[in-house]
This record gives sequence, C-alpha cells and structure tokens, in this order.
Amino acid sequence: MLRRDLENATGAAVRQAVRQGQWTRTTHGVANGYVQANLAIVPEKYAFDFLRFCQRNPKPCPIIDVTDPGDPEARLAAPGSDLRTDLPGYRVYRDGRLVEEVRSIEPLWRPDHVGFLLGCSLSFDQVMTDAGIPLRHLAEEEGRVSVYVSGIRCRPAGMFDGPMVVSMRPIPRPMLVRTIEVTSRYPMAHGGPVHVGDPAQIGIADPTRVDWGRWNPPAADEVPVFWACGITPQAVAMAAGIPEMITHSAGHMLVTDIRLGTTFQ
Amino acid sequence: MLRRDLENATGAAVRQAVRQGQWTRTTHGVANGYVQANLAIVPEKYAFDFLRFCQRNPKPCPIIDVTDPGDPEARLAAPGSDLRTDLPGYRVYRDGRLVEEVRSIEPLWRPDHVGFLLGCSLSFDQVMTDAGIPLRHLAEEEGRVSVYVSGIRCRPAGMFDGPMVVSMRPIPRPMLVRTIEVTSRYPMAHGGPVHVGDPAQIGIADPTRVDWGRWNPPAADEVPVFWACGITPQAVAMAAGIPEMITHSAGHMLVTDIRLGTTFQ
Repeated sequence: MLRRDLENATGAAVRQAVRQGQWTRTTHGVANGYVQANLAIVPEKYAFDFLRFCQRNPKPCPIIDVTDPGDPEARLAAPGSDLRTDLPGYRVYRDGRLVEEVRSIEPLWRPDHVGFLLGCSLSFDQVMTDAGIPLRHLAEEEGRVSVYVSGIRCRPAGMFDGPMVVSMRPIPRPMLVRTIEVTSRYPMAHGGPVHVGDPAQIGIADPTRVDWGRWNPPAADEVPVFWACGITPQAVAMAAGIPEMITHSAGHMLVTDIRLGTTFQ
Repeated sequence: MLRRDLENATGAAVRQAVRQGQWTRTTHGVANGYVQANLAIVPEKYAFDFLRFCQRNPKPCPIIDVTDPGDPEARLAAPGSDLRTDLPGYRVYRDGRLVEEVRSIEPLWRPDHVGFLLGCSLSFDQVMTDAGIPLRHLAEEEGRVSVYVSGIRCRPAGMFDGPMVVSMRPIPRPMLVRTIEVTSRYPMAHGGPVHVGDPAQIGIADPTRVDWGRWNPPAADEVPVFWACGITPQAVAMAAGIPEMITHSAGHMLVTDIRLGTTFQ
C-alpha cells in the first residue's frame, strides 16, 4: 500500500488498514482533512492529575478524547477504534525510559489503562499549507520541524510540572498575520503561536541546538514562530517519573473521524 | 451595597465584597464583562469520572477551571480566590438531596474536595444583549428562563449518565441567525444552541410545564431556541446517587477574572 492510496481515505479506513497490518508507516499525508492525534496511555492512578494538566495547558495538550479506564475505544473521536491496534507504532516507557517500540499493545493493555488523545501538529501543518503558508520542513520526506524545551513553564497539576516543549517554523514576514489568524482557529491542533521572534525570550539560548527534529534556520525574510508542541505532556510525565506510559511512535498517530475545523460541540 | 455599585467592578472586587459579607445576593448584573461560573464540588473519588463527563459534554459543561484536590483556590480563572467563601450562596447535597443552603463552606471543606467551575448562562445572556438580541426574561428582576430535562442523552462517563437539561429563550425569527452566530462564539458559556423549534423533537412534550424557571411562551413572530444548561451536571450527578456534592445556590455564582470573549490559551 502506498501513502497516496490513503491520501483521500477516511480516518476509519486508515485505522482499518493499520489494524490489518497493511499500513505500518507514519501517518503524515494520509486521510487528508481528518484530525490526527497523539496518544498517551497512563494508569488510572495518574489519570486525573494528567487530565487536569492537559485541561490547564490547552495549547500543548489540546484534549480530543479521554477513554474510560480499561476501554480501548475512543468513542468520541473514533467510534469503533481500538487504541491497542489502530496506531502504526507505539512506544512503551517505564520509569521515564523507553523500553520498547511495538506494533500492537494488545498484550500490554490493562483494565486500569486510560487513553488520552491530544491534538497534534500534523493536522496543523495541513491547515497552514491549505492557507498558502509555505512550510519548509514539509519539502523533505521526514518532515521534521525544530523542537525545543522552552523556558515557558506549564501550569502544574499534581505530579505533572515542567517546561513547555515548542516547535519552531520559519514563516515569511508578509505571512505572519495570516499564520496567526489561521492557526488560532484550530485550538484542537495547538492553536495560535506561543511566541514570535527572538528564541532567547522564551529561554532558547542557541536555536541551532534542537532537542528534537532538525534545525531549520529562518532566512533573511523569515521570522521564527513558535507553537506549543504535543511532546510536552510526555516530556513532563517522564520528568515527573511516571512509572508507566505508552505513547504513539513519532509520527505514527491515531487518525480520528473528526474533520479538521469541526468541534465536538 | 447596591447591585449598581458592583455593575462595573472587577471579578476580584466582587469576590472580595462577597467574602467580606458585603454582597450576599445573586450575581446577575455585577462585574459586567467578566465570566461567571457554576460551582460543583465533588469528592476526589468521583472527580476523574466527573471531569471526563464534562469534557465529553462541553455544551452543558464548559470547563473553566478544575482545582487540585484540597485546594480551594481557582488558580486559573480567579487567582487569589477562595471557593469556600467567595460565592454568595452554596447548596449542600447528600445522597442526591439538598440538605442545607449556606453562606460559607469553610466548615465543610475537606482535603479530598475538588472544585469544578463550569460556564454559566449569566455571561451568555449578556453576550446576546450586547448583540442587540432581546431577551424577555431579563425584563423581570428574577430573570428566569424556561428550563427542561430534555430527551437528549449526554455522553456518559463512569457513573455519570443522564439527559441534558436545556434552557429555552424565545427569539424573534429575524434574529435567529445572529443569535446562533453570536452564541457559537462563546463555547465557555454553553456555545450555540442544541435545538431550534419544536420542543417535542428533543423530548419536551409539554413546554408549558417547566422543570425549573418559568414558562416564557414564544410570541407569533418568535421561535423557541434551546441551549444546553449548566444544571445538567448537577442533575446527572444527583441522579447517579453521588453521596456528596456542593454547588452554588441558584444565581449565586463565582465571578472570575476572565473577560468575556477571551480563552485561557
């Protein structure tokens, strides 16, 4: 199966292809127009703190769906889904360390597992591209933005307390207002930027040294624009020493049934 | 102190007046431009289910702030606030029954109490009035809308499962589109309507028989418009047999520091 075979598929069709082992790669460029989501599974013991953390930090952690403990279906965002099999890759963390990367978490699933689906920037990049805003990182197959641990502190909740991770995209100056307008309309995909301009003002001393992704230097007519990044809740949970967390593998998202630009309301 | 003395006060000033016993009445018409909130306090044991219920039903339960267990301050929406003293009236429910109505809940507060602030229609009515939409119920001092238990089922979460409570306002037909446009912009105050027109279509057989408030019959040139109502989470929690819940008294809200039309993002 080629990426272009799934380009105009529905979210449900992509999930089925993943579940049947027909699609095992990243989800960028598939099911165009459907919201994709980060996954974070935590034991119920930590779920209320984690949900409050997300609710208080909607830019890095836009809540798309939260499952009932033990229920692997995202009933709101993807009816019929199975969070144990419908993502093309998973990462299992124990005591803050990556212990394995797997294709299915069926053997690991427990009745106290709670799944969080959080908005991700794949949807977001598409919104900008559709609005005619050029995004240089999309020109490469890997599509890597520049990602940093910033000096912006998230609002804490229980054990979860830490800095906001941000992604930077160089934006042509004449496109800056449009970029802010467009992204602000999509709070489910990180919304408007958290900072525009000098990285040092948000605690990034040397922007050439990324924490994740790759360094995409702004050109002379471009300004660095920083958005809250969906890595934040994982990074904060790891730093807090959460004993167990299961997430999507980088770029291997859950594709939902939600159309971009809609809400649940 | 007269209502008009607080009309242009800040949210913090109203909270202080309430805390000092200078204001003991309802909060409609005070601190114009500030978001007011319903309060629901539940034991931590039920808080994760209740938060998922609210998150899944954003129209009846728009989440403004959720406190840490035992913390009486709404740090996001009203820094410096004390949820035990800053509302002019509280209702205490045990096993689904109202047991007392009090001015302060300091003696009742426990380390496992979690406070939920949810958007309310006082803010909402103001938004419509500012947009030139006439609201007949505001002409009376009590300001009572027609409130019904509808046949619309909320999305359940854990023990919380029940019908949506809705409020009805008669809207002049030529104002209908504007009404939907304007209210849709305020998801923190119930957002756009859930139904327009025939009450029977949402399970209200006889609209003259209200469950709360008073019957405001639509005139010949008016259409009944129904919004999700903030009574919903309380009604659902009571019906689910929650052993304890503390709420605001009707109309006695927490006035926050948040300006209408802003978000936390």
